[in-house]
Amino acid sequence: MNKVAIVGVGHTKFGKLQKGLLDILSDASLEAIEDSNTNDKDFGSVYVGAMSPAAFNNISGIASALVDRISLLPAAADHIKNGPASGGSAIKAGFQAIASGMSDLVLVVGGEKMTHITAPGYVTSNVATLTHPEAERRHGVSLPSFAGLLTRTYLEKYDAKLEWISDIAIKNHKNGALNPNAHFQRTIESFMESAINKGKGIWENIQEFLNDDKANPIIADPLRLFHVCPISDGAAALVLCNAEKAKDYCDTPILISGIGQATDTQIVFEREELTTLKALRICSNQAYKMAHKFPKDMDVAELHDAFEILEAVQSEDIGFFDKGEGAKAAHEGLTAIGGKIPINPSGGLKARGHPLGATGVAQVVELVWQLRGDADKRQVDGAETGITCNFGGFGNNIISILVERM
Amino acid sequence: MNKVAIVGVGHTKFGKLQKGLLDILSDASLEAIEDSNTNDKDFGSVYVGAMSPAAFNNISGIASALVDRISLLPAAADHIKNGPASGGSAIKAGFQAIASGMSDLVLVVGGEKMTHITAPGYVTSNVATLTHPEAERRHGVSLPSFAGLLTRTYLEKYDAKLEWISDIAIKNHKNGALNPNAHFQRTIESFMESAINKGKGIWENIQEFLNDDKANPIIADPLRLFHVCPISDGAAALVLCNAEKAKDYCDTPILISGIGQATDTQIVFEREELTTLKALRICSNQAYKMAHKFPKDMDVAELHDAFEILEAVQSEDIGFFDKGEGAKAAHEGLTAIGGKIPINPSGGLKARGHPLGATGVAQVVELVWQLRGDADKRQVDGAETGITCNFGGFGNNIISILVERM
Repeated sequence: MNKVAIVGVGHTKFGKLQKGLLDILSDASLEAIEDSNTNDKDFGSVYVGAMSPAAFNNISGIASALVDRISLLPAAADHIKNGPASGGSAIKAGFQAIASGMSDLVLVVGGEKMTHITAPGYVTSNVATLTHPEAERRHGVSLPSFAGLLTRTYLEKYDAKLEWISDIAIKNHKNGALNPNAHFQRTIESFMESAINKGKGIWENIQEFLNDDKANPIIADPLRLFHVCPISDGAAALVLCNAEKAKDYCDTPILISGIGQATDTQIVFEREELTTLKALRICSNQAYKMAHKFPKDMDVAELHDAFEILEAVQSEDIGFFDKGEGAKAAHEGLTAIGGKIPINPSGGLKARGHPLGATGVAQVVELVWQLRGDADKRQVDGAETGITCNFGGFGNNIISILVERM
Repeated sequence: MNKVAIVGVGHTKFGKLQKGLLDILSDASLEAIEDSNTNDKDFGSVYVGAMSPAAFNNISGIASALVDRISLLPAAADHIKNGPASGGSAIKAGFQAIASGMSDLVLVVGGEKMTHITAPGYVTSNVATLTHPEAERRHGVSLPSFAGLLTRTYLEKYDAKLEWISDIAIKNHKNGALNPNAHFQRTIESFMESAINKGKGIWENIQEFLNDDKANPIIADPLRLFHVCPISDGAAALVLCNAEKAKDYCDTPILISGIGQATDTQIVFEREELTTLKALRICSNQAYKMAHKFPKDMDVAELHDAFEILEAVQSEDIGFFDKGEGAKAAHEGLTAIGGKIPINPSGGLKARGHPLGATGVAQVVELVWQLRGDADKRQVDGAETGITCNFGGFGNNIISILVERM
């Protein structure tokens, strides 16, 4: 199997963008190509990760359209769909194209454009098509409702506090404030100060602010607004090549040394345990095994905190903490930049934002910046290895990607 | 690169089916697994090719849902989208999973369920989202209109006759009549006889019937009803493994010895020549080169006759006939079973039907049956090698797969 290296990265700002989907995919792609010094090189394949460009943007054949738009014809082009894990799946497809020897140079780009949609509930309803049509969706179940249920179960089972889940959001906003590409480049403290200045209320501290029904309304009990990620636009891209040729393009190539992907029951009720993400345990073990690494070897991680409870649970199932210890670890600062294992230095889905198909790629882009030492104010000192969790459905299709310095 | 073999195939009947999409994907998948003696084996990955399950069936995460439905958890699962070439792209993804060594055993399944949709024009409008939004779609252009334009240009440029294009439909219906999985298991002659028996008209011969505006109404001038494929439901599946282990599963494994994929401009107007499918020339050459074969080595082919003109043009650009000779070759019987190079012994998209995502996989399933000698009344004697053309958009993303006996 050929070894696969990342030689270029691109990342649009995440948030409410004016440009259309093809434009933001193009921007991230061209930035990655520029970054990798592969202008005028022949790309063998292009993989686009996006969840719902047909529903959100009325475009099918998005990959074919993109290769034309950015003058990569006649490169092979495919659109990879795996819900909010479409980006991770697109990276895996690109990895296999290089690893097999079928392509020498591959572009992977993930993106989504949703904020222009004004129909109430349209985006959430579209995402809810990931749930089981008979057992779940027709009873009104959506992904936020599962996240609420998981939070309540976790808090009771492990005697944890909702404030510890809030601490994850506080940390991620703090990190996002240091990320010039983040959707929210603000701390939650700054939201509180604005609210105080506008005369909306007075709160003693940040936890009081976060427990206020007006300041932080309930979305899916017990989760409130600041416990869930926003709807964002954005795109992120990688250029991959055979690791043997990586130094031709780039002084600091990053190796993809492990990839795992695993599925779990679509019907959440059928799982052995709600608070364990079995698919993550399996796929992260695949990635560790492939890379000959262990959780203790990780210097930094990007996890899929579409809901803040998920970061806690994922930090356990990916092997950083014992079951039931993830939320407490965040509360104690172990997952902050400078802590034992920094999680989501980018701001995570909570603050960087969550343009569905972009997320899995953006996670890896952040790790590349961290491993290159290019993460500026949010740099994890000396980071040499990192891992991601990109979460599809409600945990029924998870991808974990392990990267390291070459 | 590991060599990749097909050790099992499955194929539902195509046509107007009662079952839902997940059920037909399951049926084809389980038939392929049964055929390959891989029951109770660990599948590494599952790739689902489907164009629009979200729009047609309100299901996202179709691949994650399928692996659960057919008890292949925790296999990795991804949904591959490339319009009407989604099936071919899914095979390529599965090929790369085995070729790279990332998976030992892979299931590839393509399918679509559309005939339940009653809203007039919904399916055609959905397919039209493959065209360019500004340059084409908003002016009312659809894929049938491009096919009409291509037909007129071809007939004028090469001094060909519309009757020769009709001859392709006549041949494909004749083949389809021999295929128990075909949507239309009837010759066009039998349609004419029925019309005569019902007193709808009297025609001297089949060409007169096909030129009758009532019997065969115009769809996109000069193309008429019998020159275009139907809207069909159906699914087809393959089990792939490392060729070295193929004999463990199957007595007659078939090797995938070549795969090519190439893109062309999305805007059809921007192509150098309307009557040449540049992407097919490139991708079939990639497949031939990879397999160390030439067009003259092919014993049988499955081409993408969504419109009958396409079979003529593809038979040229895939290297069987000189430019402008494809339609004439069909007229002369060179592409019939028993001819120089039998094309679409299955009945093609015209008669087997065209459940978008299923087609690319069904083409390869037909070649496997032909190469195994299992094609019964439509068997091409002594077939040892075959090639496909699976056509995405209006030719802007084409995949060609070359298979041979091991």
